[in-house]
Amino acid sequence: MSNSLPDLLIEPIVRAALAEDLGRAGDITSAAVIPANATAEGTIVARAAGIVAGTACARLAFHVLDPAVTFAAGRADGDAVKRGDVIARVSGNARAILAAERVALNFLGHLSGIATLTRRYADAIAATGTKARITCTRKTTPGLRALEKAAVAAGGGSNHRFGLDDAVLIKDNHIAIAGGVTAALERALAATGHMRSIEVEIDSLSALEEALKAGAGIVLLDNFPVADISAAVRANAGRATLEASGGVTLETVAAIAKTGVDYISAGALTHSAPSLDVALDIETK
Amino acid sequence: MSNSLPDLLIEPIVRAALAEDLGRAGDITSAAVIPANATAEGTIVARAAGIVAGTACARLAFHVLDPAVTFAAGRADGDAVKRGDVIARVSGNARAILAAERVALNFLGHLSGIATLTRRYADAIAATGTKARITCTRKTTPGLRALEKAAVAAGGGSNHRFGLDDAVLIKDNHIAIAGGVTAALERALAATGHMRSIEVEIDSLSALEEALKAGAGIVLLDNFPVADISAAVRANAGRATLEASGGVTLETVAAIAKTGVDYISAGALTHSAPSLDVALDIETK
Amino acid sequence: MSNSLPDLLIEPIVRAALAEDLGRAGDITSAAVIPANATAEGTIVARAAGIVAGTACARLAFHVLDPAVTFAAGRADGDAVKRGDVIARVSGNARAILAAERVALNFLGHLSGIATLTRRYADAIAATGTKARITCTRKTTPGLRALEKAAVAAGGGSNHRFGLDDAVLIKDNHIAIAGGVTAALERALAATGHMRSIEVEIDSLSALEEALKAGAGIVLLDNFPVADISAAVRANAGRATLEASGGVTLETVAAIAKTGVDYISAGALTHSAPSLDVALDIETK
Amino acid sequence: MSNSLPDLLIEPIVRAALAEDLGRAGDITSAAVIPANATAEGTIVARAAGIVAGTACARLAFHVLDPAVTFAAGRADGDAVKRGDVIARVSGNARAILAAERVALNFLGHLSGIATLTRRYADAIAATGTKARITCTRKTTPGLRALEKAAVAAGGGSNHRFGLDDAVLIKDNHIAIAGGVTAALERALAATGHMRSIEVEIDSLSALEEALKAGAGIVLLDNFPVADISAAVRANAGRATLEASGGVTLETVAAIAKTGVDYISAGALTHSAPSLDVALDIETK
Amino acid sequence: MSNSLPDLLIEPIVRAALAEDLGRAGDITSAAVIPANATAEGTIVARAAGIVAGTACARLAFHVLDPAVTFAAGRADGDAVKRGDVIARVSGNARAILAAERVALNFLGHLSGIATLTRRYADAIAATGTKARITCTRKTTPGLRALEKAAVAAGGGSNHRFGLDDAVLIKDNHIAIAGGVTAALERALAATGHMRSIEVEIDSLSALEEALKAGAGIVLLDNFPVADISAAVRANAGRATLEASGGVTLETVAAIAKTGVDYISAGALTHSAPSLDVALDIETK
Amino acid sequence: MSNSLPDLLIEPIVRAALAEDLGRAGDITSAAVIPANATAEGTIVARAAGIVAGTACARLAFHVLDPAVTFAAGRADGDAVKRGDVIARVSGNARAILAAERVALNFLGHLSGIATLTRRYADAIAATGTKARITCTRKTTPGLRALEKAAVAAGGGSNHRFGLDDAVLIKDNHIAIAGGVTAALERALAATGHMRSIEVEIDSLSALEEALKAGAGIVLLDNFPVADISAAVRANAGRATLEASGGVTLETVAAIAKTGVDYISAGALTHSAPSLDVALDIETK
Repeated sequence: MSNSLPDLLIEPIVRAALAEDLGRAGDITSAAVIPANATAEGTIVARAAGIVAGTACARLAFHVLDPAVTFAAGRADGDAVKRGDVIARVSGNARAILAAERVALNFLGHLSGIATLTRRYADAIAATGTKARITCTRKTTPGLRALEKAAVAAGGGSNHRFGLDDAVLIKDNHIAIAGGVTAALERALAATGHMRSIEVEIDSLSALEEALKAGAGIVLLDNFPVADISAAVRANAGRATLEASGGVTLETVAAIAKTGVDYISAGALTHSAPSLDVALDIETK
Repeated sequence: MSNSLPDLLIEPIVRAALAEDLGRAGDITSAAVIPANATAEGTIVARAAGIVAGTACARLAFHVLDPAVTFAAGRADGDAVKRGDVIARVSGNARAILAAERVALNFLGHLSGIATLTRRYADAIAATGTKARITCTRKTTPGLRALEKAAVAAGGGSNHRFGLDDAVLIKDNHIAIAGGVTAALERALAATGHMRSIEVEIDSLSALEEALKAGAGIVLLDNFPVADISAAVRANAGRATLEASGGVTLETVAAIAKTGVDYISAGALTHSAPSLDVALDIETK
Repeated sequence: MSNSLPDLLIEPIVRAALAEDLGRAGDITSAAVIPANATAEGTIVARAAGIVAGTACARLAFHVLDPAVTFAAGRADGDAVKRGDVIARVSGNARAILAAERVALNFLGHLSGIATLTRRYADAIAATGTKARITCTRKTTPGLRALEKAAVAAGGGSNHRFGLDDAVLIKDNHIAIAGGVTAALERALAATGHMRSIEVEIDSLSALEEALKAGAGIVLLDNFPVADISAAVRANAGRATLEASGGVTLETVAAIAKTGVDYISAGALTHSAPSLDVALDIETK
Repeated sequence: MSNSLPDLLIEPIVRAALAEDLGRAGDITSAAVIPANATAEGTIVARAAGIVAGTACARLAFHVLDPAVTFAAGRADGDAVKRGDVIARVSGNARAILAAERVALNFLGHLSGIATLTRRYADAIAATGTKARITCTRKTTPGLRALEKAAVAAGGGSNHRFGLDDAVLIKDNHIAIAGGVTAALERALAATGHMRSIEVEIDSLSALEEALKAGAGIVLLDNFPVADISAAVRANAGRATLEASGGVTLETVAAIAKTGVDYISAGALTHSAPSLDVALDIETK
Repeated sequence: MSNSLPDLLIEPIVRAALAEDLGRAGDITSAAVIPANATAEGTIVARAAGIVAGTACARLAFHVLDPAVTFAAGRADGDAVKRGDVIARVSGNARAILAAERVALNFLGHLSGIATLTRRYADAIAATGTKARITCTRKTTPGLRALEKAAVAAGGGSNHRFGLDDAVLIKDNHIAIAGGVTAALERALAATGHMRSIEVEIDSLSALEEALKAGAGIVLLDNFPVADISAAVRANAGRATLEASGGVTLETVAAIAKTGVDYISAGALTHSAPSLDVALDIETK
Repeated sequence: MSNSLPDLLIEPIVRAALAEDLGRAGDITSAAVIPANATAEGTIVARAAGIVAGTACARLAFHVLDPAVTFAAGRADGDAVKRGDVIARVSGNARAILAAERVALNFLGHLSGIATLTRRYADAIAATGTKARITCTRKTTPGLRALEKAAVAAGGGSNHRFGLDDAVLIKDNHIAIAGGVTAALERALAATGHMRSIEVEIDSLSALEEALKAGAGIVLLDNFPVADISAAVRANAGRATLEASGGVTLETVAAIAKTGVDYISAGALTHSAPSLDVALDIETK
């Protein structure tokens, strides 16, 4: 995982998640039932095989609620776990651990689910022996984009742009309004400095040559049949970076990779990955 | 859907999602390629059958970015759609519509995915002719709990507690530390006023009678075999409200409902529902 | 006191109060007059008898401004103090202590005032030998609800609902629009899951039976004469939980308690409690 | 009232108060019982005599929740009302009006309570025929200082400093650490530009002359017996502005005013004013 | 100007600036002196020649404070003005206009100052007839980066990366730790997806060939003498995009442009541009 | 420097600046190129002579990003440095130091630039042997007012009011609407308590006597020729504090000071001070 995310960026999201769960009155069950000074130890355990992501979120969930709770990670983001493996150990005040438990697990389960699904795509591509990379999209859960992008990276995927502002992606609607691929690319090249990538989406093989001639450095082949992707790779002959997208599944990704395309993007990595089952087993003292 | 969520509570979440996507520089593609005064019309269309949820989020995504964009809902939260149905129409400034598109669809796809999965559970139960209700848990996506709970309601599900503070749920760890079901319930009843519900989780049939005698109004049967749920329903004889949880799937939910249990809770409703495929078809002018 | 409020929920309120007092330029008096490295010790002292609440706020006021200031609590929330008793000792940088002093005292005085008044009501009820509980309302100071509810608990009171979302309370206007007690309760029971309490307010004895038949678990007797509360308790015969409200004072609360009603609610606990006089006596070094 | 507070400063406080009351799920009672399109009209009525303050907060409570609700003020801040007088009329969506009601009344009751108590002090002083002004302190409710200061102004009081940063107030601890009144004032005068007032607190008549000689423009006579205040007024002979403070009550304020002192400050105005009883009478349609 | 910045991104900054100026009590001068219903008209006028930027900030300063104030822009961002030219006209409530005036002018003066200085650099380059572009850096005023980048664009400059996250820039320290240009570039290319640009900084001509061979698409020539820049341009022969930086001034920029370099970056554009003198001339009614 | 600004007020500004620079993905260059556990030491060095300000911001930039980074200040705010002097040393994790570097330097360069320019004005006045003080205005950079005011103080300047709310300044427009200096001052004096200063701006010598008679304690001589300032000083004869403003430059400030005026205000101190050149020299380990 490209772990460039400092706690500074993660902590506000974790803090908001804790506040969302604690509401106005906090954990009223523990306050009523658990003595204030009771301590506990626990292990965060994988209940299914997968790839871990979100350990920083889990750590911060406990630390933000109670800095005295210790969190010892047994696995790092990107590590594979099998059912029963210990991801981390926590120790400290029992009320604090119980109050942070659900938030920690919600982050860990959600992000590990994304990493796990990404790894399956990455493994399917790796089996082809090609250099294609699976990459995510902007179809992420509102508020969690940076974390989900990091989870994709933990799973072995590559990251597409992070938002509307950090790269240019000219789509069909832009082309239609601009009056064609050439016109749209000309405007984009004129407006964009040297530090921003420009990609243009085409929906048929016939548009490839125009895109290349107009100076496209990256071309997105949207909903191309596999045969057309192959044809585009041949026609491109290494001039531009090529990306395939549209309805990519675990069943089709290998065939797409074999065309020689550079990147394969799939929204499902972030919008439809099932949660990885993780739990906190507590031993009270 | 119990649409009690005012815009006041939704708008900050939508605003944060837009800011997350717009980053520091906004939609640089549209700014470069689309004339500032171009207008567009579009329809938000379902690309698969399902149940709609999140229309308020989609509406606000466009309105917050540009109050002059019109948003006409064709379907309300809780409505069923089939592939190709129009969920809403938008009209206005082309740059604004394109900039808000992805955020609007991300909310709509995610929340409709939850409503759709919930409806499948609800339908499976309804087919049994019992009065059991499917209900969600606190296993929600960080930051989106209220929206996801509303999506569950839109799908025909019932809502469990919204956080640690609005109801008491005594789990195995609480019982272990307190020294038994009776002791834990006594403390909870003493500490809790008349406006809060108290539920106790038990993990075997043998604990039911103690829970009922200790005054439990709601009992959670955790990971009970179906036969044991049936036995619990008979032993309870209407004294407490009974809820079954643990590994509930679309395949098992009907059998559980037939036991006569009152509520069936499933974390998968909110943590593993695949997104409903929705898209914005734009006609530029 | 049911001290379920973690620092996570209190600290933002304390931080905002400090920022409100420090303004743009901070404590310009101390910066001008007190050497930067001067230290001081002080005691927070009660200047009148009462019940303490808000010690966590006071502690955080000093710690948020300067983590190196030590705060040693001599009394906990819920403890009784008499004039002259030391509630806490602080020690550290003189500028920091002087800058946090007023905010710490404002929280402590306000919340202890609420706890003190609540205790007077609780004691008046306790003297009757009945099991009635004094309880607060939603008539709280904007922004301080959770803290004021905790102060009521510290004073020995019970907490009513914390907001519009955590319990159902059907009032006269709801009944009027719904077309009667039965219709309103039917709608509420159908819309509300098993984790939320439902209370219905009635304004005359004649409505009690309808409320009970419609399934009300909690009935609020609003502005009932004491004789009518007694009659309601008899007619109820233990079926529902009964709460009396409306113009309750320290003079009338005992008589109401003697009727056998379960809860007695009074807005005055939170909206009209005079501040408890507390001060910081500083010994400079 | 010096109504310099723009909505920009009030709205975030009102918005936070609404969010505090709406919690995660909003007004679940109205959502269950009141049809979504029901409308209502209501009048905000004084249930006791007093002085109105906080009308902008009440207006914003309704407008922020639903901009379509109309709010017609019948009284302005600073106006006197008697029991039964209409303060404002509201009209619009019934759910919105019911959801905002409590927040609007909490602001109005709290702030009008402060204005009402201030007016009583101001009237007591006015009856003496002197030019003394009653003034508030920094003993305000955390988060509400600006609103409470405006309520004091609405009641006819004068405002002391708003925080630690907008004026210098040298108290006993500052003097002790600095090594005397003269030393403290010298430091303050050297550090403070021409746009900030400087006040020094003295606790005995004997310190007055030193304060005046050291250049004090404003002198706070803390806990002076009335006779000593009179003596101070005579000794001052118009050189500095004089303020009296310490245990001022409605019983003692007139005697203090008669000494000829310029300002009389009382923390009770803001920390111990009982709420003014206000209610919303709703007529549903 | 590449005006991709929606109001959604600007408004929070303007709102914070207004709150900073209004403090706790608002505009106490106008509240005391100006009748509440007085109206005024005014023109925002340039007091010196320059390039306009920040009109959206100025418009929002008035609108956020009072939506009823009209703001009619006479000049758009990027327009040249000479002394006396009217940039915008405002009309509405006198107190609102006076309260927003300073904030509106502070934005306009600061951002127009940046646009004006940028235009001078751009004009100096344009006079050389080369295609070089002046570009800004991350040496911006904390909190105002997006606005300052837009002001640079309004002045005719190009934008470099907006932050640490949207492009890779390998500097001397990175190279030193990584163990050389080649090693650093290899790591960066492996970690970075197809949507991010990668630039490497070199401090001597001798490092150019290694950078190009290691795959650098953009090379930053840091503090190169002009002769070395020329040599680098010749050696590069169009392979990479070349950027020159380090002590660029209005006196030296033309000579640098004549070398044939593609981009010339200067921190002074944003960190040392003097404010453009703008004023609001008010005609009261 | 009157260093009354606690970290509580500075940290949110620093945190926002870091978040602005880190964006969504953090420092992707360092994450790719620098090993996670690499450490580094560095010195923050002045590249030009000047006066230091903003050291607390620089310290917090490193500490907020990584509390384990040590920051040892070699110079305090207000200290003079010459080219090559070390302002501070930092040591710790290399990624953290590189990620915080630009933000720390942006604050330090901007604020030291203001302090440096202020000192030049203060020195020019000091050379006259008069007691005049240079003072800043509200022409500050949005969001940074308190920091810029502190930088002015570090440079030896005096601070004017911090906002619209902490002092009254009656300008030409107020006077025009109020109907004259006397009327405006009367209203201001009646509305303002004893803790707020009142200043009135006049634009010609003829208005001075009216202002003094109406009770002005501070008079702002706006755009007066030097001869008229001298005349005003004579006419005033010590009655009011006099401030001169309007087009003050380093060339004219001494002559203005020699008139005997008390304060000389200049917007340029904060809106047009060029940044002081500071850099971080890193030695990696």
